[in-house]
Amino acid sequence: MAASKLAVGVLGASGYTGAELLRFLGQHDGLRVEVLTGDRMAGKEIAEVFPHLGPQRLPRLVKIEDVDFADLDIVFCCLPHGTTQEVLRDLPHNVKIVDLSADFRLYDPKLYAEVYGHSHKAVDLQKEAVYGLTEHYREKVKATRLVANPGCYTTTCELPLIPLLADELIERDPIVIDAKSGVSGAGRSVKENLLFNEVLDGFSAYGVGNHRHAPEIDQCLGDFASGEIKVTFTPHLVPMVRGIFATIYVRLKPGVLVPDLQERLEESYRDEPFVHVLPPKSLPSTKHVRGSNHCLISVHPDRIEGRAILLAVTDNLVKGASGQALQNMNVMMGLPETMGLTMGPMFP
Amino acid sequence: MAASKLAVGVLGASGYTGAELLRFLGQHDGLRVEVLTGDRMAGKEIAEVFPHLGPQRLPRLVKIEDVDFADLDIVFCCLPHGTTQEVLRDLPHNVKIVDLSADFRLYDPKLYAEVYGHSHKAVDLQKEAVYGLTEHYREKVKATRLVANPGCYTTTCELPLIPLLADELIERDPIVIDAKSGVSGAGRSVKENLLFNEVLDGFSAYGVGNHRHAPEIDQCLGDFASGEIKVTFTPHLVPMVRGIFATIYVRLKPGVLVPDLQERLEESYRDEPFVHVLPPKSLPSTKHVRGSNHCLISVHPDRIEGRAILLAVTDNLVKGASGQALQNMNVMMGLPETMGLTMGPMFP
Amino acid sequence: MAASKLAVGVLGASGYTGAELLRFLGQHDGLRVEVLTGDRMAGKEIAEVFPHLGPQRLPRLVKIEDVDFADLDIVFCCLPHGTTQEVLRDLPHNVKIVDLSADFRLYDPKLYAEVYGHSHKAVDLQKEAVYGLTEHYREKVKATRLVANPGCYTTTCELPLIPLLADELIERDPIVIDAKSGVSGAGRSVKENLLFNEVLDGFSAYGVGNHRHAPEIDQCLGDFASGEIKVTFTPHLVPMVRGIFATIYVRLKPGVLVPDLQERLEESYRDEPFVHVLPPKSLPSTKHVRGSNHCLISVHPDRIEGRAILLAVTDNLVKGASGQALQNMNVMMGLPETMGLTMGPMFP
Amino acid sequence: MAASKLAVGVLGASGYTGAELLRFLGQHDGLRVEVLTGDRMAGKEIAEVFPHLGPQRLPRLVKIEDVDFADLDIVFCCLPHGTTQEVLRDLPHNVKIVDLSADFRLYDPKLYAEVYGHSHKAVDLQKEAVYGLTEHYREKVKATRLVANPGCYTTTCELPLIPLLADELIERDPIVIDAKSGVSGAGRSVKENLLFNEVLDGFSAYGVGNHRHAPEIDQCLGDFASGEIKVTFTPHLVPMVRGIFATIYVRLKPGVLVPDLQERLEESYRDEPFVHVLPPKSLPSTKHVRGSNHCLISVHPDRIEGRAILLAVTDNLVKGASGQALQNMNVMMGLPETMGLTMGPMFP
Repeated sequence: MAASKLAVGVLGASGYTGAELLRFLGQHDGLRVEVLTGDRMAGKEIAEVFPHLGPQRLPRLVKIEDVDFADLDIVFCCLPHGTTQEVLRDLPHNVKIVDLSADFRLYDPKLYAEVYGHSHKAVDLQKEAVYGLTEHYREKVKATRLVANPGCYTTTCELPLIPLLADELIERDPIVIDAKSGVSGAGRSVKENLLFNEVLDGFSAYGVGNHRHAPEIDQCLGDFASGEIKVTFTPHLVPMVRGIFATIYVRLKPGVLVPDLQERLEESYRDEPFVHVLPPKSLPSTKHVRGSNHCLISVHPDRIEGRAILLAVTDNLVKGASGQALQNMNVMMGLPETMGLTMGPMFP
Repeated sequence: MAASKLAVGVLGASGYTGAELLRFLGQHDGLRVEVLTGDRMAGKEIAEVFPHLGPQRLPRLVKIEDVDFADLDIVFCCLPHGTTQEVLRDLPHNVKIVDLSADFRLYDPKLYAEVYGHSHKAVDLQKEAVYGLTEHYREKVKATRLVANPGCYTTTCELPLIPLLADELIERDPIVIDAKSGVSGAGRSVKENLLFNEVLDGFSAYGVGNHRHAPEIDQCLGDFASGEIKVTFTPHLVPMVRGIFATIYVRLKPGVLVPDLQERLEESYRDEPFVHVLPPKSLPSTKHVRGSNHCLISVHPDRIEGRAILLAVTDNLVKGASGQALQNMNVMMGLPETMGLTMGPMFP
Repeated sequence: MAASKLAVGVLGASGYTGAELLRFLGQHDGLRVEVLTGDRMAGKEIAEVFPHLGPQRLPRLVKIEDVDFADLDIVFCCLPHGTTQEVLRDLPHNVKIVDLSADFRLYDPKLYAEVYGHSHKAVDLQKEAVYGLTEHYREKVKATRLVANPGCYTTTCELPLIPLLADELIERDPIVIDAKSGVSGAGRSVKENLLFNEVLDGFSAYGVGNHRHAPEIDQCLGDFASGEIKVTFTPHLVPMVRGIFATIYVRLKPGVLVPDLQERLEESYRDEPFVHVLPPKSLPSTKHVRGSNHCLISVHPDRIEGRAILLAVTDNLVKGASGQALQNMNVMMGLPETMGLTMGPMFP
Repeated sequence: MAASKLAVGVLGASGYTGAELLRFLGQHDGLRVEVLTGDRMAGKEIAEVFPHLGPQRLPRLVKIEDVDFADLDIVFCCLPHGTTQEVLRDLPHNVKIVDLSADFRLYDPKLYAEVYGHSHKAVDLQKEAVYGLTEHYREKVKATRLVANPGCYTTTCELPLIPLLADELIERDPIVIDAKSGVSGAGRSVKENLLFNEVLDGFSAYGVGNHRHAPEIDQCLGDFASGEIKVTFTPHLVPMVRGIFATIYVRLKPGVLVPDLQERLEESYRDEPFVHVLPPKSLPSTKHVRGSNHCLISVHPDRIEGRAILLAVTDNLVKGASGQALQNMNVMMGLPETMGLTMGPMFP
């Protein structure tokens, strides 16, 4: 290993986003994984927690308080929201951070407190945070030392909407987002409603009318729209492991036609390696992106004139979490943006 | 078997709705299955087509042209649309019919031709047909000899909307229906996109902006609303076998509140054996109705004032097809409406 | 309800076998469910624990110590092994019992202690217990007041083997049983390895070389064989909810041919309503019995002469648990054996 | 692209093994894909056949007769058995071949004719073929120009058995192999029994007593054993997309103990990058290798002395097909054996 490789730490390596990140880090030539934390699992080999990682050579899990952060160039934080704000606040300044939790996504600590039910513990650090929807905040990501990696629902909903709102091709209201997620979006939580027997061959909604991702979407879309945004957002649980599917109902501005939306989106994403606008009448499936960092988007006329339906798919653990995190790290570190992320989707 | 038992024929017994109907007919004390047709399978035992029906004593499959309809009291037609209009037209008048196809659902033969791509071949019979959403057309079903059994999507969408439109609690536009179906909704068609490998762990949409069920929904809702209806309707394919889940976005009329919707729906369905309005904040799952004739409905406030979200679930093969067909037969024949349909959902 | 209906109690109604039992009890005309217990859930409506049971009218859950057993005719015990031996021991003598746990299956309390890791707490009651593999212990079941309902694996393995061993058509060793189970066999336990994300699209073995069901199989087969039996038994976890599939490798006694096995099994089960021997070359699927009390059996020649392969399938929650329990109750109470159990499999 | 990159052709790119091969070829730095054939799909972009490959830059599909083989260094043949023997026979001699079909696996054309039902059409080429179970035929693979890539079942069964038979630690009879496969093992065939609705939540066996892979296993094991081998082999269909699980029942030679098997296997595979012997009591899952070229093996004592149970898992599309094909190509071409194959399993 060359001395010039980046030293990487992964906080919370015993969850699904941690594991998925390690899968991609193993394909990245420019770094070495030096530290893995997993509090309840400290002392164990990663193979005891994730047998599929056994063949990959990785350090033993340690407690977060036993990490010497001074030796690290970059830290990925894969822990649940609200648990590491103070840890990240106190890191040495030379360490760059990609935080996969929701902790630094909302600009306003008051809104954070409202949505997450406790006050923010690192308000100053919040000011430094850049929202890491790479394609639209790339220049800011390059310049920051803390990226707040977006959520999986939010990434999938924002990518098709931003260019259309930025160009005022669609109305700011109503925007109805009917979103569907695979079960891995809930993490490795051991809960009755996530048991195989409870999930297979069933479909349900949750967080109807008040899901935590809605304010994040409002904020991000507001960054590009000509005024405030408040979306209708309903998440659903699909009996599949991976994938986010967003069905988005929008209204065209007067004089705008559906092909205008298509054209605008194609233009926006023509040179993007991970965002692909499909030809008219194409129907994306989450299965077409599973295991990859891709997002597919399609545009459809509604049967009612002046209305359109946008479809977008991602893998919630990749473009919706660990893949985008690595993409952001590449940008922060001045590496090629696709490094470690070139493996295509696994199908079937 | 008593001589007074109804003699039943099932046309198209080799498809999923045929099989599901036979499962319920086997529990019904007031009838005997005398005829099963299955054109490509004629001459075979049903166990060769559906091994799970082996233990049930059933007649051998025959061709439709070999059936002596004069001996039958009731015929269920489980064939694809467009294939049996002439057969049904020419049946003896004493035979009652429940048609599970789309053939007689649309009142206007011109609309039928437009939606299904060929002219209607039994226009006169169409005039006799009653739309069999039992809870709302019960009196007409009692009086007719031909029931057009509603589609699975349509049943699930109409049940929550009819009482609210009838009482003018919600606006007639926009009504955005984001619907999700299990794969059995596509029947036993042998197509690449329905293969296990193509479906598992994936989610997709189809018929976006122009699905055939939309005009059926418009028509039925129009029967109860104060004016014409045109809904936005997007169907999706869920990697599960059974179940329809409808997420319906509506606007309240000025002065109406979400609890008013709840109350109105509870009132409407209080005495219905198969439609259940859940308490506020409940979240129905398709798994709670799988294998049964039940429909569950819940009502939720949107995060945007003046808007509400309705959820409804059914089993597409039961309340969305064969169960409702038997319910309609019971009504037509003056039998107790729940006869043969009392088995609860299979969970897990 | 007629006064003559049996009064039934279900202990442990908040698990899967409890729920499945209630589904079938709801179809049984000769009884009424008077008591449901669920210790952690006491005070709740069953719909809070199992929403799918909401439409069925059932009593509220109570604690086991609050039950007045004197009013009951029959008690089904759906609790984990080792938890209710003392409760059952102290029941009034007029109450009949079907115990679905493993508590009373092994004749020898010493063997029980060895296999289950604690001493038996109702040794006297053990002496009264009858092993409830209905088809082969029917006369004893009729006469007893305590049935030890067999396990799901054991039922599925014993049905094909008993007639062949009884008639000395196959060797007593080796008998290699490679068994596969759906995930509901593990009950509603909230464990990481039973999460949807961990199970879907994976297959694994467990209890290799030492599963608790093996001694139960040895004992039961020994009841019919000409000497002691010790089987090789490997259970596997299939990514499906319901179903047991047993692949059984046996050796023919000298002079015996595969068709002799077929004939013997057909003879044994010709008049049984729930056990079906398929024609030669048939391939049973667990999906052909799902949701029903049926067992399907087929017989196949191995590619090596003198050896045969037996296949058998059941639904672990029905013939492997609650269905057989109700079948045993019917026998104990002198009711028709199929009462409440006539609903066919749910397919697809 | 450097001129020194190998020019690769893939015959039959429209099947699952073709698609999976392309996924891995996209990660390989030493080659470029020049030709894709797909007869019924000729003229189409690969994205029309496999949308998930859209983002990967690949040539358009052509007919096999339109390929100029002279420009290619290596050809992967992903077509069904019996379809390309003559094509491969007539290739220019400088082109190396990895054939993923069963066409060149059996040494004896008479046995081939018996098993596959038609005479072999390239008997001379058969003589050149090397069986490509890389770990055990590596030197021969290096020297040949035609590799017959092993089947998925066979790879998974042979890896654990070869070292034990070679060292005479286990008896040559009985060897009972109870094997389980994901549905992708059947390819992209559009058949009723492979429909989602027919497969989900069901488990079944097929080819009982006479599957085509059994003679291939006999032959390969015979290459290493002290005498002829005839295994008992039963394949099963698991409701999952990917994965082979083999449960293998063996007898120890007198004096041999289970830890001897463990030790011998560890020794054999210590330096292999893709074959991993797990510590005693470990339980491999197909999910631990899904999407990767790994094989995991574990060894267990049976409850009957002198007998052992071996477990082995692979991904049928990777180590059981396209991954091993690329591994063989690397060996044939003198490249690092793991090139393009380093991506770890996808979990969950």
